[in-house]
Amino acid sequence: MVALWEEKAAAKRAQLAASIPKEYMVPEDQLPPADRLDVSNVPKELLPADVIEITELTGTELVAAMAAGKLTSVAVTTAFIKRAVLAHQLLNIFTEFFPQVALKRAAELDEYYKSSGGKTVGPLHGLPVSLKDQFRVKGVEACMGYVAWIGEPDKENSTIVDLLLKAGAVFFVKTNIPTSLMAAETRNCVFGQTVNAYNRTLAPGGSSGGEGAILSMKGAPIGIGTDIGGSIRIPSSFSGVYGIRPSHERFPYLKVANSLEYSETVVSVDGPLAVSLDDLTLFSKALVAQEPWKHDPRCIALPFREYEVPKRPLVFAIEANDGVVTPHPPVLRAVKMVTEALKKAGHEVFEFKSYKPAEGVEILVRAWTVDGGANIQGDLDASGEPGIPDIMPFVKGHKALTIPELFKFNKDKLEYKTAFLEYMNNTLSPSGKPVDAWIRPVGVSASVPAGQLKLRYLGYTGLLNLLDYTCVAIPVTKADPAIDVAAPAPGTGEWAEVEKLSWEDYVPEDFKNGPVGVQIVGGRLEEERMLAVAGVVESALKA
Amino acid sequence: MVALWEEKAAAKRAQLAASIPKEYMVPEDQLPPADRLDVSNVPKELLPADVIEITELTGTELVAAMAAGKLTSVAVTTAFIKRAVLAHQLLNIFTEFFPQVALKRAAELDEYYKSSGGKTVGPLHGLPVSLKDQFRVKGVEACMGYVAWIGEPDKENSTIVDLLLKAGAVFFVKTNIPTSLMAAETRNCVFGQTVNAYNRTLAPGGSSGGEGAILSMKGAPIGIGTDIGGSIRIPSSFSGVYGIRPSHERFPYLKVANSLEYSETVVSVDGPLAVSLDDLTLFSKALVAQEPWKHDPRCIALPFREYEVPKRPLVFAIEANDGVVTPHPPVLRAVKMVTEALKKAGHEVFEFKSYKPAEGVEILVRAWTVDGGANIQGDLDASGEPGIPDIMPFVKGHKALTIPELFKFNKDKLEYKTAFLEYMNNTLSPSGKPVDAWIRPVGVSASVPAGQLKLRYLGYTGLLNLLDYTCVAIPVTKADPAIDVAAPAPGTGEWAEVEKLSWEDYVPEDFKNGPVGVQIVGGRLEEERMLAVAGVVESALKA
Repeated sequence: MVALWEEKAAAKRAQLAASIPKEYMVPEDQLPPADRLDVSNVPKELLPADVIEITELTGTELVAAMAAGKLTSVAVTTAFIKRAVLAHQLLNIFTEFFPQVALKRAAELDEYYKSSGGKTVGPLHGLPVSLKDQFRVKGVEACMGYVAWIGEPDKENSTIVDLLLKAGAVFFVKTNIPTSLMAAETRNCVFGQTVNAYNRTLAPGGSSGGEGAILSMKGAPIGIGTDIGGSIRIPSSFSGVYGIRPSHERFPYLKVANSLEYSETVVSVDGPLAVSLDDLTLFSKALVAQEPWKHDPRCIALPFREYEVPKRPLVFAIEANDGVVTPHPPVLRAVKMVTEALKKAGHEVFEFKSYKPAEGVEILVRAWTVDGGANIQGDLDASGEPGIPDIMPFVKGHKALTIPELFKFNKDKLEYKTAFLEYMNNTLSPSGKPVDAWIRPVGVSASVPAGQLKLRYLGYTGLLNLLDYTCVAIPVTKADPAIDVAAPAPGTGEWAEVEKLSWEDYVPEDFKNGPVGVQIVGGRLEEERMLAVAGVVESALKA
Repeated sequence: MVALWEEKAAAKRAQLAASIPKEYMVPEDQLPPADRLDVSNVPKELLPADVIEITELTGTELVAAMAAGKLTSVAVTTAFIKRAVLAHQLLNIFTEFFPQVALKRAAELDEYYKSSGGKTVGPLHGLPVSLKDQFRVKGVEACMGYVAWIGEPDKENSTIVDLLLKAGAVFFVKTNIPTSLMAAETRNCVFGQTVNAYNRTLAPGGSSGGEGAILSMKGAPIGIGTDIGGSIRIPSSFSGVYGIRPSHERFPYLKVANSLEYSETVVSVDGPLAVSLDDLTLFSKALVAQEPWKHDPRCIALPFREYEVPKRPLVFAIEANDGVVTPHPPVLRAVKMVTEALKKAGHEVFEFKSYKPAEGVEILVRAWTVDGGANIQGDLDASGEPGIPDIMPFVKGHKALTIPELFKFNKDKLEYKTAFLEYMNNTLSPSGKPVDAWIRPVGVSASVPAGQLKLRYLGYTGLLNLLDYTCVAIPVTKADPAIDVAAPAPGTGEWAEVEKLSWEDYVPEDFKNGPVGVQIVGGRLEEERMLAVAGVVESALKA
């Protein structure tokens, strides 16, 4: 007998399938066989030239072309709809799809442009933007992979959706996540597993994994994710795209669906993933120009502050290994590539160890389970679905804190952050200069085998959530079994058992072609500066 | 038999008394009789002309005089020590007194000035600054009126103390508070009751009441208080001085003693009280110049942004009565005086009602009692002291929230703040202009009879803590039984019973000479702008 929750989930999947007009789909028999793992080039093989021509442009190039009257939003939106559908056919990305709404909006924007004599409504005029399932769009559901939440179309937009509409964005799709968002994976009992474009046995990362996947296939130029422990940066890195985790209080999070909603111990932030670094800047600037602080009381009234990188050599603190869990060989190689490129470009780099990272990560994990898992368990129990095993560490075996215990937690958190700040203040390069940016891996591995619970350590990203530092993730390389050979665990990590298991996971062929990125980290609320400094790193890598 | 806690408290009082050198005291027999209620002019009657000459200057005038070599810090510090001691003899203000430390520091600053050829160490060079008992000074206690905390000299300075030292401040005294800080009064089982300079049967307000009292007597030009529900603004208003409640994350609160420490539901902020508006600006600018964000991870990297008031007429939303509890006649008169003065100066004023203030205040009160009073009760129980009746509402009869209840609280708080922000965005003056500042009373009364539990409503200040808006309190007038005649409660307040009791309290003679201020309110993190706009209000009042 099929359980009621399974019936509900199947009905939701059928509804999603029905929302994809056949005209946009590539016929089944033209799709590559299931055993073709790298499908990143399939769009170029199967889609018409005009679709490819448009969708290979960055968001920045697209808005310029539309503003100049060289492309219409209808043409651009149609092209991305087609490419996104193919991406979905290959990777299982969508949770909601509403192309008619998007095309109507695109036509309206084109009409405005035409009738106004070439005016745009804003800096994102006509640009398709993908949304993680959390973001609410009026009339569209945000079930977040919870069976219990199926069937309730939203009555209003998330604030960020409203502001991006004002800036001219066109929304057409929402993308997959892990149940409860508390995993760096992308699977749930409603929509199943989303996989990686570069190796379909790998996950696209998570929790904004649907965004990573759609962007890696250029099914959208820009998407919005959220990050409470790495959920923007991990899918950026695992999917070979760009992402920024802004500091809390910069971008609006109002009316965004969430689990552990209204916990203030460590807060989730929202931010863009994109196909280029310029697009992260385009998005951030366009959003801040909408004055989010006039709508979300948590946002600070900080206009976008243009930042020009100083002409002198920059100083980079490089932390390839946090000393808690040593990353896999492809990750160590990626950091080395960045280090060498920066050196070659004349910048100063030095090896850096962050302040007691294991302690920070332990505090963070307490933050994620302040309610003893009650919130997530409640949403699972509401339908009887089992959830996914990935999130069980955040549900089982925890007791909710009492308020005095929460105060103690807040104390530990503040003391750690204070000590960390002081440590950073006192960190100087060998030549005696202060640090311009800190570079660390995004995770221990080059993506991760899908659905196998092998992402054992989130400290590389999570620590920065605790600190609320600005992080920009950029792609660097891909795992190559020929270079990134297996080895025994170095045994230097403080979490020795986790490191041992993690290195046992590292069978080079299993990770083949998995993208690897790094994050460029600055202080709190330094979005503009870190985007600019990430540009320096990218230039060095591309030189 | 004297209880152990009483013995400990008596010993602490004896220690304090012994810390005041006789040479600085006015002989008992020269002091005014206990039934002289207004002692605000006693310093001028009893202290030497040179002391008066110095101490009548504002902080801004004093730092200018010292920077120009016209006064030494030793002379200035000595003068304030003398005036502060007399103030203490009259009002019972001190908790800690360390004049030798201050004079040594002042001599060092003078020596630096001399030997460097007229350089200052910073913008507060040589200026005596008073500290609420919460602020930690190495080697000095911060028992906060808790008997259990007596006897533990601090091992390090509060961050704000360190930064002000760098700016050149001289610390010489710490001042009285109510037990636990959760009262707009100033009394505790260790140091007893602090009273009001303008009417010694009145309280100086609280919880930064010692600061209000010392500043009202010009025993210091500037002091530092803290505010979680009005604790800077109420003593400013009740003592006839100036104060600013900055937004959270602007000034550093690190290593400041507190009760309910590490609660993040509604947070206490620290800020200056002063004898002039210029001094609030002097202090704020000097503190921000020390880059507090490099030390306290909660502080935002916002340099001091000079603000020039536009030349056009400003728009003021005037809320004399929040509709929850109608203020007493002297307060209504004060707001009317401000309204008339602004009108006369050509500004646009209109009657304003804030958004559901009773709802906001109810949320705030829940924030103050999230732990069910456990923290405060624990600190009382540790010595067996009874505490003060003022704080019993925050100790008795509450159950600690559970974490899910806390999430619900956070939800209610965010929704209220969001609705409020939207309401403010939509508020326009009758001529259709947006509001430059919102003016409301600081409290329901002109000070309050000391120790009689008659301050029944803190919503006028507390609502702004919930909203985290910037508020500047300025003095306006004093209660005058001849004008501010008694009347029955208007009966228009939503909290009818509280309003009734509050108006029964209003026996004009009991409040005679009690100072009344107003607060000038802006958005979040608008310290510079609100200080400038408060200057406009003050100019109008003085015209």
